Amino acid sequence: MERLNIGELNPSPRILMGPGPSNVNYRVLRALSTPLVGHLDPQFLTLMDETCEMLRNLFQTKNRLTIPISGTGSSGMEASFVNFIEPGDTVIIGVKGVFGERMVDVADRCGVKVVRVDQEWGRVIDPGKMIQAVTQNPGAKLCAIVHAETSTGAQQPLSEIGNFCRGREILFLVDTVTSLAGVEVKVDEWGIDICYSGTQKCLSVPPGLAPMTVSPKGMEVLRSRKSKVRSWYLDLSMIERYWGEERFYHHTAPISMLYGLREGLRIIFEEGLEARFRRHHILAERLRMELETLGFRAFAQEGYRLPMLNSVHLPQGVEDASVRKRLLSDYNIEVGGGLGQVKGKIWRVGLMGEACRIQNIEYLVAALREILKK
Amino acid sequence: MERLNIGELNPSPRILMGPGPSNVNYRVLRALSTPLVGHLDPQFLTLMDETCEMLRNLFQTKNRLTIPISGTGSSGMEASFVNFIEPGDTVIIGVKGVFGERMVDVADRCGVKVVRVDQEWGRVIDPGKMIQAVTQNPGAKLCAIVHAETSTGAQQPLSEIGNFCRGREILFLVDTVTSLAGVEVKVDEWGIDICYSGTQKCLSVPPGLAPMTVSPKGMEVLRSRKSKVRSWYLDLSMIERYWGEERFYHHTAPISMLYGLREGLRIIFEEGLEARFRRHHILAERLRMELETLGFRAFAQEGYRLPMLNSVHLPQGVEDASVRKRLLSDYNIEVGGGLGQVKGKIWRVGLMGEACRIQNIEYLVAALREILKK
Repeated sequence: MERLNIGELNPSPRILMGPGPSNVNYRVLRALSTPLVGHLDPQFLTLMDETCEMLRNLFQTKNRLTIPISGTGSSGMEASFVNFIEPGDTVIIGVKGVFGERMVDVADRCGVKVVRVDQEWGRVIDPGKMIQAVTQNPGAKLCAIVHAETSTGAQQPLSEIGNFCRGREILFLVDTVTSLAGVEVKVDEWGIDICYSGTQKCLSVPPGLAPMTVSPKGMEVLRSRKSKVRSWYLDLSMIERYWGEERFYHHTAPISMLYGLREGLRIIFEEGLEARFRRHHILAERLRMELETLGFRAFAQEGYRLPMLNSVHLPQGVEDASVRKRLLSDYNIEVGGGLGQVKGKIWRVGLMGEACRIQNIEYLVAALREILKK
Repeated sequence: MERLNIGELNPSPRILMGPGPSNVNYRVLRALSTPLVGHLDPQFLTLMDETCEMLRNLFQTKNRLTIPISGTGSSGMEASFVNFIEPGDTVIIGVKGVFGERMVDVADRCGVKVVRVDQEWGRVIDPGKMIQAVTQNPGAKLCAIVHAETSTGAQQPLSEIGNFCRGREILFLVDTVTSLAGVEVKVDEWGIDICYSGTQKCLSVPPGLAPMTVSPKGMEVLRSRKSKVRSWYLDLSMIERYWGEERFYHHTAPISMLYGLREGLRIIFEEGLEARFRRHHILAERLRMELETLGFRAFAQEGYRLPMLNSVHLPQGVEDASVRKRLLSDYNIEVGGGLGQVKGKIWRVGLMGEACRIQNIEYLVAALREILKK
């Protein structure tokens, strides 16, 4: 190994206030470092059941199929589309940022007709517009939208759309990658049929798993498919047999990551969902006030701002890349830049899970005062 | 959380002598528990480069695109097919166990014509038969086979097939999930165009990543596709832009798992590939001798037996499930049962990476003597 000269792992102690990953509690790190049992070991099967049960509580659902997909949040997005649509179907997608665009790309690859409901970035989509699209496209298979658009910091209202879809032959699909465990996500109450998330945002578990839940109505659609699911790896009709009582071998579960997820979920329920949401809400208010004082102006639509992802316009004269670089190299603070059409124009300041702490806000503000000489 | 009553993580200290996962070195576990940096942090980008460089050495290739896919070994299989074939293509697949069958299923979902070259389980496929299928199917896009068939314990010869494909317009795809880091895998010398593996076998890193490499010939096929890759998550034309110099955001890399993989690779190269292969070879000889003495008869074809996965017929009167259950519950030893058509008929005893140790063999033999009263 001398030849490759690759030394010991020695990363700097970063404070992760970007769009994710967020910081991870030491208990989750400790769980990750626990020696492995086999993926069909009775002890592991118990752990799987416990994890599903906690995920159900987190998604506020009774859905039997509530599991972590063995990939990052984007694999959850792909699983949410490929399992439920078939070539020739019509799907309606709300697009108001990068992740809505990504949904269009994912759906497009499935050979379906995509009806877009577009909205200016930073704003939310009027639920009436989504409902109108559903009405105008009878026979559409599903209607999809991002709850917390990570590229803009806007929080989409969902219950009105869900309630409309509930009694109809259309599935309601929601991306909660950034929102889950930071704000309310009420899958059953809001009439969501397919919902996925990621572990590296407000769950404060490393990236690598995509919690997902499917309603009985969604399962019916899955079971009545005419063709095989296009993806073998993400085929829920096989995956559910591994996570269910049958324990049918599909692929080897990512054991260590599941150790970490289980511990992260335990921590969430020790704090309690309400307390956790309140912490995110209160500290976001504080952060926004501080950033405004420094000249940063909110980007997302008023009244619909995400607590865990604060998007802000830069003050006049502040150069995006160089200031973020100094924050990282001199202060060990990561904040996120803009994506796509707002690249260089906004910052995305995360307050996710473990990283959502008053000391992080105070330190970021102090660092910015020094850099900006304010 | 009282209500759910989910206690501290406390798994038993298993000795993993099944078909994978294998035991993980404490240094890899320690790496997994390292606090996270962001997935676009300069320090993480360095780590990515280091990991790719070590993977190139492990695959014995100069292929630029040599990366870990963000999913388990099966996601590597899917990535290896979906990126290179399009509806209407013909592919040739050697089938001699569960994982060859899985290849057929994965390819089938891509809308291609599959030409099977079948062989009795436990035996290898005569390279001449694969070459004959290539000759008889001019225009076939790729020819795929499993190197180490994890369901049977047989090691497939590859170089003759690879050399035949080299000068021709056909890609040679090989599954090295179980073989990589346990026996020689010479991607460039053997003319392999697409090769994938998993981390949880002889690399002794937890499951969750699929190392993969693609030859320049494979990259040409990827670049000249007529249609988009069906899977967004596994689309190598986007993934290579994240792992390459551009650092284009695709999905959030599974940071902690990559910490673990980097450390696992460092350990492999500290031992040295030759020494590692020799260790697997010598200890497998020892295990086979001991198992024979106890009445277990080798299942895989003589001369083609995998050192890291020893498949054996059970001795007369030995009941599969109950003996394996006792090994696990009373001795903390996991060995694997048979899959598919050999379920209940064979055992699969793994000697993979960290688990390939003389003390494990001695302990397993002692435990079996006690249980079988020999």
